[in-house]
Amino acid sequence: MITVLAGGVGAARFLEGLARVVAPAEVTVIVNTGDDEEFFGLHVSPDIDTVIYTLSGRVDPERGWGLAGDTFACLEALAFLGQDTWFRLGDADLATHIHRTQLLRQGRTLSEATASIAAAFGLATTVLPMSDEPVRTQVVTPAATLPFQEYFVRRAFQDPVQGVHFRGVESARPAPGVVEALLGADAVVIAPSNPLVSIGPILAVPGIREALVETPASVAAISPIVGGKALKGPADRMMAGLGLVVSARGVAELYKDFLDIMVLDSADEALAPQVRSLEIVPVVTNTVMRSASDKAALAAATLRALGQESCESPSSL
Amino acid sequence: MITVLAGGVGAARFLEGLARVVAPAEVTVIVNTGDDEEFFGLHVSPDIDTVIYTLSGRVDPERGWGLAGDTFACLEALAFLGQDTWFRLGDADLATHIHRTQLLRQGRTLSEATASIAAAFGLATTVLPMSDEPVRTQVVTPAATLPFQEYFVRRAFQDPVQGVHFRGVESARPAPGVVEALLGADAVVIAPSNPLVSIGPILAVPGIREALVETPASVAAISPIVGGKALKGPADRMMAGLGLVVSARGVAELYKDFLDIMVLDSADEALAPQVRSLEIVPVVTNTVMRSASDKAALAAATLRALGQESCESPSSL
Repeated sequence: MITVLAGGVGAARFLEGLARVVAPAEVTVIVNTGDDEEFFGLHVSPDIDTVIYTLSGRVDPERGWGLAGDTFACLEALAFLGQDTWFRLGDADLATHIHRTQLLRQGRTLSEATASIAAAFGLATTVLPMSDEPVRTQVVTPAATLPFQEYFVRRAFQDPVQGVHFRGVESARPAPGVVEALLGADAVVIAPSNPLVSIGPILAVPGIREALVETPASVAAISPIVGGKALKGPADRMMAGLGLVVSARGVAELYKDFLDIMVLDSADEALAPQVRSLEIVPVVTNTVMRSASDKAALAAATLRALGQESCESPSSL
Repeated sequence: MITVLAGGVGAARFLEGLARVVAPAEVTVIVNTGDDEEFFGLHVSPDIDTVIYTLSGRVDPERGWGLAGDTFACLEALAFLGQDTWFRLGDADLATHIHRTQLLRQGRTLSEATASIAAAFGLATTVLPMSDEPVRTQVVTPAATLPFQEYFVRRAFQDPVQGVHFRGVESARPAPGVVEALLGADAVVIAPSNPLVSIGPILAVPGIREALVETPASVAAISPIVGGKALKGPADRMMAGLGLVVSARGVAELYKDFLDIMVLDSADEALAPQVRSLEIVPVVTNTVMRSASDKAALAAATLRALGQESCESPSSL
């Protein structure tokens, strides 16, 4: 069993590769819900949906989120009714949020709602929210403390970041199965997601970081920073704003209490000794996922470093 | 000021005609909410929406309900997620229900939500729900007591009807402005809607029937039964099931404590003496609304019978 900690688009791309080299039923994904938000009274879980849509092959391949071929008639009508529509929700995508919100209002947990959606999309992989309790990532900027989606989508992550908070995290508990999936895993992977606002909220849920320290499984992380820059999104700017070293080494430091292996991009080979000095084994490979075979090769290299077999040689892809 | 009691499609067609012969701002519509229902956790008010969509010219002209040109991507995705989708909600239409539900969850009343939607659709006419409290029409059939939409849409009104109940009506109050609109009107019109399940729930709200008896304004009804048959829907079968006379005269009897004028179709001219015997003035005209000018002519004839001026001669339409 492989357990993966995941944010949104970057993690989903890695998971696509992983699904090609291990049986999807042997993978459990623990997904960030710190950037969940309510829009139009509907509970939206962007990272969970990105993971489910991607693993089911239904994701919009251009955007990396939302459903391929989706339309926006409802959103346009919501704008007509005077609603703010900066968060883009497609018509078919809205069904996911309507369905989830209905289940939550009926007293079901976010785990149960997620399982219902994952089952409808035909997933064999287990997708778990990090917690069933609400945790809301807040980004401190010079102008204001912003809810994550406001910072990320509405303001296109242009504000300098002075801090990150996870509102509600103190009283959140890991969702059912999360601690078990970490303690019982053969290997754990931290996907190449933003360490501060995608992986950070997961680690902040009391009990999850402790389980990562405690697990007998080896833990590998894939750096989302390559050549000092984030492959996607604001991770580099955020890390700089918080006074962190903007590199794979800086990421490794954030995880050093539980990390065994750091997967670095070939471009960052020179950082290997720095990673090793943290008592973390550096593994150098191509981490930039452009094609399906890039994704599978990265997953296979990560599994190999973790001493796990993969069922398909990435060179044959 | 003209106040109209209205159900869905038939009423909306009459209101379209009325809007051509009096200033829309001089019309207040009190709409049935007994067939409101929750679908997918969203509050749907079918009759209110039919009235607003029709008066704004946005209604689907074929169906008589929903929005013209609407698509059904979200509904298809809800079906994919395992939801029952026999109640057809289009993508743009869904925005109305999402918006309304959000306002209600924020503590706004159904009147306020209705006013917000009517304003967005640019209506000058005042649209009032009969009540801000939930009233739910239940139809007693041999098999089961069914919520109205289940009887009407899902089972296509095929079940024999043994009774009609309005759950919650005892504790419902007329929405703000409803009693005032009846007592202060220059004339009141009961639209050609199903007397049992469209007008019936409105009359069952404590205080509304009393206001109709008390109002100094003349009250006219347009018969939805022509030649012993309902122009649309199950009114004839329901009336028969309840042992009522299936004719304009039967409808007049249901309203006789407050009705001054009954507008009969030319085909029912022979019923005029029966109506007169109830101390209700019969007015015979064409009540079958096929064209825009039919609608305006019926509205003008109704206003004339009520002693009201209309601003446009129907013969010129």
